[in-house]
Amino acid sequence: MIIVLSSLATPENLEHLTGLLKQRGLDAHLSKGVETTIVGAVGALSSTEDKEAFMGQLETLPYVESVMPVSKPYKLVSKQFHPERTVIDVGGVRIGDPTKVILMAGPCTVETPEQLREAAKAVKASGAHILRGGAYKPSTSPYSFHGHGLPALKMLAEARKEFGMPVITEVMDVRDVETVSQYADILQIGTRNMANFTLLKEVGDSKMPVLLKRGMAALYEEFLLAAEYIAARGNYKIILCERGVRTFEKYTRNTFDINAIPAWKELSHLPIIADPSHATGRASLVPGVSKAAIAAGADGLIIEVHPRPSEALKDGAQSLNPAEFQKLVDELEPIAQAVGRTIK
Amino acid sequence: MIIVLSSLATPENLEHLTGLLKQRGLDAHLSKGVETTIVGAVGALSSTEDKEAFMGQLETLPYVESVMPVSKPYKLVSKQFHPERTVIDVGGVRIGDPTKVILMAGPCTVETPEQLREAAKAVKASGAHILRGGAYKPSTSPYSFHGHGLPALKMLAEARKEFGMPVITEVMDVRDVETVSQYADILQIGTRNMANFTLLKEVGDSKMPVLLKRGMAALYEEFLLAAEYIAARGNYKIILCERGVRTFEKYTRNTFDINAIPAWKELSHLPIIADPSHATGRASLVPGVSKAAIAAGADGLIIEVHPRPSEALKDGAQSLNPAEFQKLVDELEPIAQAVGRTIK
Amino acid sequence: MIIVLSSLATPENLEHLTGLLKQRGLDAHLSKGVETTIVGAVGALSSTEDKEAFMGQLETLPYVESVMPVSKPYKLVSKQFHPERTVIDVGGVRIGDPTKVILMAGPCTVETPEQLREAAKAVKASGAHILRGGAYKPSTSPYSFHGHGLPALKMLAEARKEFGMPVITEVMDVRDVETVSQYADILQIGTRNMANFTLLKEVGDSKMPVLLKRGMAALYEEFLLAAEYIAARGNYKIILCERGVRTFEKYTRNTFDINAIPAWKELSHLPIIADPSHATGRASLVPGVSKAAIAAGADGLIIEVHPRPSEALKDGAQSLNPAEFQKLVDELEPIAQAVGRTIK
Amino acid sequence: MIIVLSSLATPENLEHLTGLLKQRGLDAHLSKGVETTIVGAVGALSSTEDKEAFMGQLETLPYVESVMPVSKPYKLVSKQFHPERTVIDVGGVRIGDPTKVILMAGPCTVETPEQLREAAKAVKASGAHILRGGAYKPSTSPYSFHGHGLPALKMLAEARKEFGMPVITEVMDVRDVETVSQYADILQIGTRNMANFTLLKEVGDSKMPVLLKRGMAALYEEFLLAAEYIAARGNYKIILCERGVRTFEKYTRNTFDINAIPAWKELSHLPIIADPSHATGRASLVPGVSKAAIAAGADGLIIEVHPRPSEALKDGAQSLNPAEFQKLVDELEPIAQAVGRTIK
Repeated sequence: MIIVLSSLATPENLEHLTGLLKQRGLDAHLSKGVETTIVGAVGALSSTEDKEAFMGQLETLPYVESVMPVSKPYKLVSKQFHPERTVIDVGGVRIGDPTKVILMAGPCTVETPEQLREAAKAVKASGAHILRGGAYKPSTSPYSFHGHGLPALKMLAEARKEFGMPVITEVMDVRDVETVSQYADILQIGTRNMANFTLLKEVGDSKMPVLLKRGMAALYEEFLLAAEYIAARGNYKIILCERGVRTFEKYTRNTFDINAIPAWKELSHLPIIADPSHATGRASLVPGVSKAAIAAGADGLIIEVHPRPSEALKDGAQSLNPAEFQKLVDELEPIAQAVGRTIK
Repeated sequence: MIIVLSSLATPENLEHLTGLLKQRGLDAHLSKGVETTIVGAVGALSSTEDKEAFMGQLETLPYVESVMPVSKPYKLVSKQFHPERTVIDVGGVRIGDPTKVILMAGPCTVETPEQLREAAKAVKASGAHILRGGAYKPSTSPYSFHGHGLPALKMLAEARKEFGMPVITEVMDVRDVETVSQYADILQIGTRNMANFTLLKEVGDSKMPVLLKRGMAALYEEFLLAAEYIAARGNYKIILCERGVRTFEKYTRNTFDINAIPAWKELSHLPIIADPSHATGRASLVPGVSKAAIAAGADGLIIEVHPRPSEALKDGAQSLNPAEFQKLVDELEPIAQAVGRTIK
Repeated sequence: MIIVLSSLATPENLEHLTGLLKQRGLDAHLSKGVETTIVGAVGALSSTEDKEAFMGQLETLPYVESVMPVSKPYKLVSKQFHPERTVIDVGGVRIGDPTKVILMAGPCTVETPEQLREAAKAVKASGAHILRGGAYKPSTSPYSFHGHGLPALKMLAEARKEFGMPVITEVMDVRDVETVSQYADILQIGTRNMANFTLLKEVGDSKMPVLLKRGMAALYEEFLLAAEYIAARGNYKIILCERGVRTFEKYTRNTFDINAIPAWKELSHLPIIADPSHATGRASLVPGVSKAAIAAGADGLIIEVHPRPSEALKDGAQSLNPAEFQKLVDELEPIAQAVGRTIK
Repeated sequence: MIIVLSSLATPENLEHLTGLLKQRGLDAHLSKGVETTIVGAVGALSSTEDKEAFMGQLETLPYVESVMPVSKPYKLVSKQFHPERTVIDVGGVRIGDPTKVILMAGPCTVETPEQLREAAKAVKASGAHILRGGAYKPSTSPYSFHGHGLPALKMLAEARKEFGMPVITEVMDVRDVETVSQYADILQIGTRNMANFTLLKEVGDSKMPVLLKRGMAALYEEFLLAAEYIAARGNYKIILCERGVRTFEKYTRNTFDINAIPAWKELSHLPIIADPSHATGRASLVPGVSKAAIAAGADGLIIEVHPRPSEALKDGAQSLNPAEFQKLVDELEPIAQAVGRTIK
C-alpha cells in the first residue's frame, strides 16, 4: 500500500509510521519529493482480514494525507488468479463458452401455468436455452404484486420438464435458498440484494450456479467483491450480470454500462450476461442494446418475454412479445457470428 | 392516473382504452389538444395492489405514449395521511420531539468491553442520548472484519445498563432480528439493506423502533416506500436516516443530501436523523455537516466516536475522538437553540 | 400541459386557474378524481417562447401540486417533425447513410506536421473516412497543453489535401468559428460546451456541419435542445455524438450510454456518432465499445489514433496505435455487415 | 507522482521507466512488494505544463498499471499556497469576512424597471447586501426567454444607484465581458459555463470580482481548477458558489452538496456562497438549505426573490416572495450568530 505524507510531516512522524508498519511485518520504502514524501509499505499482512482496517487507521494519523491500496481486493474471481475463462455447464447449456451466445428468456413473473407454458414454448421455439420467470419478486411498494412463491416454483419445474430447459429464478430470502434450489437450476440474486452479504454467503454454501446482478450504484470493485463473497464459500459457479446503473437520465429506466463488458473481461474470468430489459425499461430499446452487448463480448442475454405484454402483472413496458423476440434472435445471429459465436 | 396518447392514436384506440378503464371501474376524462390527447383515469382500483401492474400494461399499448401516476404511492408514512409529527420514545429519549436534538454516538464497531465502555463514558459525558455500536457489520470485502456478533450484543447490553443509555445496533439477517431485539433498543437497517424487503417485513413484525438508512442511490419515493414496508406491518416507530448518496465526487465518501431534510419534513411525519460520518467519510467534515443538518431541521445525529480512531477496526478515518465530539456538541448547542431546540 | 391540483384545492381555486388559462387562450379540461383533480390545458400558446415560463408560474400557485408538459420541447431535430433520417454529405462522405459505417480517426491533438501525416496515412490506409485532430484543446488545468491553434489548423488543411480526407476539429471560442470554418470540414462542439449557447448559435449561423458532443451530465432532452439551438439558426447539418456520461464508476473515465443510440434513433432524425475513446479512457476497452455502438445502430465512430500513444501530448492512455486501429477495423467490418452496413 | 507497475513487469521494463524519468529530470524511488513494484517519481518537471501529458504517456506503457498524481493540480487558489482566507471588498460589502453573512438577492431575471425596483426595495429592506438579477439568461430551450440584455443591465445600474447596493449579473459570452463589467460589480459565471475556458480567461483578464458557479457534474478538483484559470490571469477576486449537483433524485431540481462547504474551506482560501434556489428548485426547501449552508460555514447566500413569483418570467417555482425572504432573514440571524457571524 502507498502512504502519502502531509507536507507538514516531521522526521519524528516518519519514524512513528515506520514503527507502526514494522509491528505489522511491513517494510517502509521512502520516496522523498520536493513537496511530499511517499511511503511504500511492502510485505504481506498476517491475514487479508486486517488490511482495510489498517488502512483506515493510518488515514486517521494527522501527518498522513492519504492511503492507497495497490493490489486488487478480490482474488478468487480475478483473471490474475485464474487466467482461463470459466464455463458453467447447466444441464448441458455451457454459459461462458466462447463459441456460444446463451439466451435466457421468459416472463418477468410466473403468473399462471398457461402463461408460463405459452412463454416457454415461444422462447424455446425461437432458440432460447434457459427459461426465466419470477416466483419471488422484489417490489418497491409493499402494495404491489410480489410473486406467487412456491406454486410458481412448481410451475417452473413443470415447464422445465415439459420443454427440457433449465430454469433460472430469483431468491430474496436466506430462508428460501434451500427450497428454490430444489426447483431451479440457477439462483438469481437481484440488484437490490447485491450487497445482502448474508444472502451471498447462503447461495455460496448452496453450491448452485448463481447469476449475480450488479447493484444499481455498485462500482466494478464492489460488484466483483460481492462475487468474491460467493466464491469464498467454495462456489465458483458465478455469472456476472450487467443490468444498467442508476444515473440522472429519465427517458430510460437505467443506463446500461456497456464499458463493463470488456472491463469485466479483463478483470475477471467469470461469464457475463447482459439484461437489456431492466437496463432500458422500454421494449423498443431492447433489440439495440442486446446486439450491442453481444458485439462487446457478453456471453449471453437475459430478456423478458411475455405472451401478451399488455396483460403482464409486472414490467409489461419492457417485455417483448414472442414475435418481437423471434425477430431479435434472427437479428442477433449474424452479430454472434461476427464475433465468432452462435446462438444455436 | 394520466394517460398521454400518441399523436397517431385513432378514435378506435380511444374507445379501446376507455373500455379497458371501465373494466377496472375507472372513468375516462378526455382532454383533446392540438397535438395530443390526454386521458385522466378517475376512480379507485379495487385494490392498490394492481396499480403499478396496470400502469405497466397501459404503457405497452402502441397508441399510448406515457402513463403518469398522480397520487403518491405511500400512505402510512405520508404527512397527508398523518399530519402531526411522530415522536418515538425510547427509554425516555424522545426522538422527533421538536424541542430536542437527539445525539446517537459511539464506535463504528464494538471491539472490546473496554473500548465500548470508554466510548460510552465519553459520549455520555458530552451529552449523547443513545449509544451506537456495531455487532454485525456489512463489509464490501468477504475478508474484512464483520463484527463480533452475539458477544458484541452482550457488551452493548452491559454498557446500556452501566451508563443508562438506550442502544442502537444494526441487524443484517432476518434470522438475527429476534436476538438483536433482546439486546438493543433500536434496530438499524443499513444502507445496503434498504431494499431488502424480507428484512423490512421482519423488523416491521418485531414492533421495535427502527432506524432506516436511505439506500446509496435511492429516490425519496423509494426510501419512503421502504419505510412503508415497515409501517404496513403495523410498526410505526420508524426513524428516517440520511447518510449521503453516491455521486461522481471522489473527495468525500458520499454526498450528504441536505435537501432531503426539509423535503422529507414536507412529505412525511417521521423523525429524521442525519449521519454525517458516513456521508463524508472524513472526520474533518463531520462538524460542518452536523451543524448543517440540525440547522436544516433534522431531529438528531448519529455520529461515530472512537476512543482512539487510529486504532479503530473499522471506519477510523471518519470517527471523531472524544475531545472532537465534545467540541462538536459545544458548537451544536447554539445552532440547536437557534432553531428552537436543545441537546440537553 | 397537465396541471395536477393539490388535494386541498377549492372550487374557487379551480375557477382562478381556468381564468388564467383562458387569458392565454387555453381551454381547461377537468378530470376530478377521488383524491385529486387534474386539469388538461389545451390549445396553443401565442408563441413557444412563453411555455416554460408559464409552467413555472403555475407551479408557484399554492393550490397546484405539479405541472407536466406533454409535447416534446424540441421540434426541428425531432423524428416526429422530420421522419426521414438525415444524411450529411461531407466531401462525398455520407454521414447517416444507413448502408455505411463512417470512421473518423486521428490524434487527440495535432502535435507536428510529421505526427499528423503519419497518423493520417495510417488511418486512411485502415479505412477511415474523416481525419480528426485537435487544434484548440479544452483542458481541465490552465497549466496543461491547450493545442497549437492556427498552425495546427494549417497542418490539418495540409493533411486534408495530401490524403484527400475531410477534416474535423473542435471550436471552443465564438471568435474562432470563422477561422476554424476556413480550415475544417466539420466543426466539433466539445462536451464542456454543449450548453454554451452563444457558441451553439454561432456554429448554427456558420452553416457548417457540426458534430455536437453530449454534455457529461446532459439529459437526452437537454442534448436534443442543444441541437435545436443550432437547427433554429437554419443549420440542419448536425451530428449527435455520445461520448459517455459521468457516473460514480472510477475504473473508466466515463460511462458510455449505449441506450442512447436506439433512443436517439426513435427521438430524432439526426445521424449518431459514438466516441469510445473518451467514453472509456482506456485503449483496451475501445474495441469492445466500438463494436457495441455499431451493433446498436450508430452511424459511425470517432476514435483517437496516435502513431506512438506513449509519446502523445494528450490522452495517450485512450489512444490506439495504428496496428490496434487496423485490427479494430478488421473486426468491425463483419459487425457492420451484420447490421446491413459496410465500412468500405 | 506514483507509478504502479504491472505484476508482469521485467527488470528491463523498470530500467526503461527509470530512463524515461531521468530524461525529464526525475528520480525514481523503488518499493518492491510481493506482488507489485511501486515507483515514486521525485523532482520537479521543467514546467507544470507537461505533467498531465506525461502521466498519460506513462499510462500507455504496457508494463504500467496505473499512475497517480500526489500533489494537487491547483496552486493559486489552494489553502496550502495562501493560508489566510480571502476577503473580497465590493463597494464596502466584505465577502469572505468571517464575522459576516452576505446576502445576495433579487429576481432570476430583470423583467421591467418596476419589477426590479420593487424587488430591490424589498430585499434591501430585509437586509440583503447585494442585488442579483439576470440580463443574459442561459436557457435549455432556444425558444425560451433569454433575458433583456443591455436594457436590463441599464436597469440594474439604475437600481444600484437608487438603492446603494452593488449588483451581480451573469455573463455568458466572451464578447459581453467588457459591457457587463461597465454595469455590474460582480460577474457571475453560470454552471453551464464553468468549463468554458475561454470565458474564464476573459473574466480573469477583466480583473472584476467573479462569482463562479460549480458545474452540474464537476468534481471539487475540476471546480478549483476552473477557479485557477481565473487566478492564473492575475485575478484573485473569485467567489466559489455551490448550487447543487445533478443526481438521480427527481423531487428536487438538483442535490445541494453540503459537504462541499467544509471541504472547500480546507482546500481553498476563497470565499464560498451557497445558492439554495437552484439547488432545490422549490421555494419551500430554500429556507432549510439556506440555514444549513450558513451553519456549515458558508460566507453567504444568493437567493432568488421576486415581488410576485407567480408572474415571474423564469424560475418562479423556486423564487421566494418578499415576505418569505423577510422571514428567512429573521430565522437566519440566530444561526449566523451561533457561528460567530451576523447578517447586519
